[in-house]
Amino acid sequence: MKILVAYYSRSGHTKEMAQAIAKGVRNEGVECDLRDISEVNVDDLLDYDALLFGSPTYYGQMAAELKKLFDDSVKHHGKLTGKIGGAFTSSGMVGGGGETTIFSIIHALLIHGMIIVGDAEMQHYGPLAIELPDEEAVKKCVKYGQKTAALTKKIT
Amino acid sequence: MKILVAYYSRSGHTKEMAQAIAKGVRNEGVECDLRDISEVNVDDLLDYDALLFGSPTYYGQMAAELKKLFDDSVKHHGKLTGKIGGAFTSSGMVGGGGETTIFSIIHALLIHGMIIVGDAEMQHYGPLAIELPDEEAVKKCVKYGQKTAALTKKIT
Amino acid sequence: MKILVAYYSRSGHTKEMAQAIAKGVRNEGVECDLRDISEVNVDDLLDYDALLFGSPTYYGQMAAELKKLFDDSVKHHGKLTGKIGGAFTSSGMVGGGGETTIFSIIHALLIHGMIIVGDAEMQHYGPLAIELPDEEAVKKCVKYGQKTAALTKKIT
Amino acid sequence: MKILVAYYSRSGHTKEMAQAIAKGVRNEGVECDLRDISEVNVDDLLDYDALLFGSPTYYGQMAAELKKLFDDSVKHHGKLTGKIGGAFTSSGMVGGGGETTIFSIIHALLIHGMIIVGDAEMQHYGPLAIELPDEEAVKKCVKYGQKTAALTKKIT
Repeated sequence: MKILVAYYSRSGHTKEMAQAIAKGVRNEGVECDLRDISEVNVDDLLDYDALLFGSPTYYGQMAAELKKLFDDSVKHHGKLTGKIGGAFTSSGMVGGGGETTIFSIIHALLIHGMIIVGDAEMQHYGPLAIELPDEEAVKKCVKYGQKTAALTKKIT
Repeated sequence: MKILVAYYSRSGHTKEMAQAIAKGVRNEGVECDLRDISEVNVDDLLDYDALLFGSPTYYGQMAAELKKLFDDSVKHHGKLTGKIGGAFTSSGMVGGGGETTIFSIIHALLIHGMIIVGDAEMQHYGPLAIELPDEEAVKKCVKYGQKTAALTKKIT
Repeated sequence: MKILVAYYSRSGHTKEMAQAIAKGVRNEGVECDLRDISEVNVDDLLDYDALLFGSPTYYGQMAAELKKLFDDSVKHHGKLTGKIGGAFTSSGMVGGGGETTIFSIIHALLIHGMIIVGDAEMQHYGPLAIELPDEEAVKKCVKYGQKTAALTKKIT
Repeated sequence: MKILVAYYSRSGHTKEMAQAIAKGVRNEGVECDLRDISEVNVDDLLDYDALLFGSPTYYGQMAAELKKLFDDSVKHHGKLTGKIGGAFTSSGMVGGGGETTIFSIIHALLIHGMIIVGDAEMQHYGPLAIELPDEEAVKKCVKYGQKTAALTKKIT
């Protein structure tokens, strides 16, 4: 069992979230690859049981660099079906497009036939930090990683 | 194991989709309750392993009658976590708000901590019919019911 | 020229936002009716040049009470075309469904053929407060009211 | 007064929509530049009173090539405020992500402070064709171009 946490990050905010999520996955005893999106090839996506993607909030959507990976992933359309997916973002302000960014990724994951899980307590659609994630936001990312890993163990 | 297919329908279009989805669930050997939303009490929601909701497309969102059920469901907030959820709609035309209606339901399901699954082949976010579902649309609804039942058996 | 600010509010948070928006509209010298959604009849909607709607964030969408008004507004479908519209919400937490709630209203306004305007500086899609709006959030609501009134004067 | 219709298109479907929209703009007596996205520089965006963007539906969002233009447009953040914007897409099937693609563009336009207008009769959020636009879809694109040009004349 193996989970990918892939991120695009310029300021480092989204990267910090990705690191915390990866930590949570490993806390649960599940192998985790943490990678900058530039180091991810579409062929790699087939190797994981769960795929978690992070991007800064750029004009209310994932960054073009991450979108390109999804566009290229059409090469394997249908082969990601049944895998678990998730999304996280770092946004500049409340109401700044963070939720729509998370959904820009979730839309792509659903079109791949993947499984998404919400959260009744924390940020419902996926981790969302305002600027540099503070201690509380980091904790939530760790928890999110653990939760995703637990679900992956259960389903896979 | 038991799945609820609940719908709101005035013209009968959404009801026909609901019937086809329920048929698909039963084809898979899973018990299914098919109910008009007026016959669903928020307490009932706790009894099912999967909850599928249908609504006509009214101004790009689920009908107020279904929204009221979700608003009232706050009584059991947290207790639906981990259940499987899904959404379907009947819309007046292509580009008429059907996709945003499906997401209006999916948002609520994710906030309940539920599990959503996309589809790489058919309508990606959930069954969407234009007006009265034709034979092809009915077939897809049946297939969607089967797929959801199969996932429920696997996860639950 | 006349603008309606209509809101649904239980805790009073959304109402406070509505009051600040109405104040902004009046600052701009434009007549403004501020009303609880229970006091708004669908026939009233025809009397205004701009319509601004507020709701708490309930399961990532507007409250059923406001959705009912939109469902009933089908009676005047087509007659709101060209009016200016806007949406605001009070949400329980960052990433709690506030943006999707604003869009649940914007979807309905666009389906009525209305005109929506974004904001490059403040909350982009419409005012979004976390819990009770603080002084900063109130200021943004006032500014939003002024901006909408100025646009209404320009277009109408 | 000048309107830009910019598109990304591989199969030619979105290009055909763009041509019809440009025709509609010109029918209204307004100058229109019709351009492939590769020929559009972010500096060009400042020269127009209205900006209409089209993309195929790729994983429920605009293509990465168009997203890149928006990401780069941060260079002029704030300077597009008050311009009219719009979005159109060509999708592979009903429920295939066309509406979410239109909103992926609308989100970006709103974040730029632009003005969006819905349609009470035709496809509400913007032109949406399934595969190659048929005669009816082309007619709607022409009408959309005319409507946008008329609004631009009124507002600008």
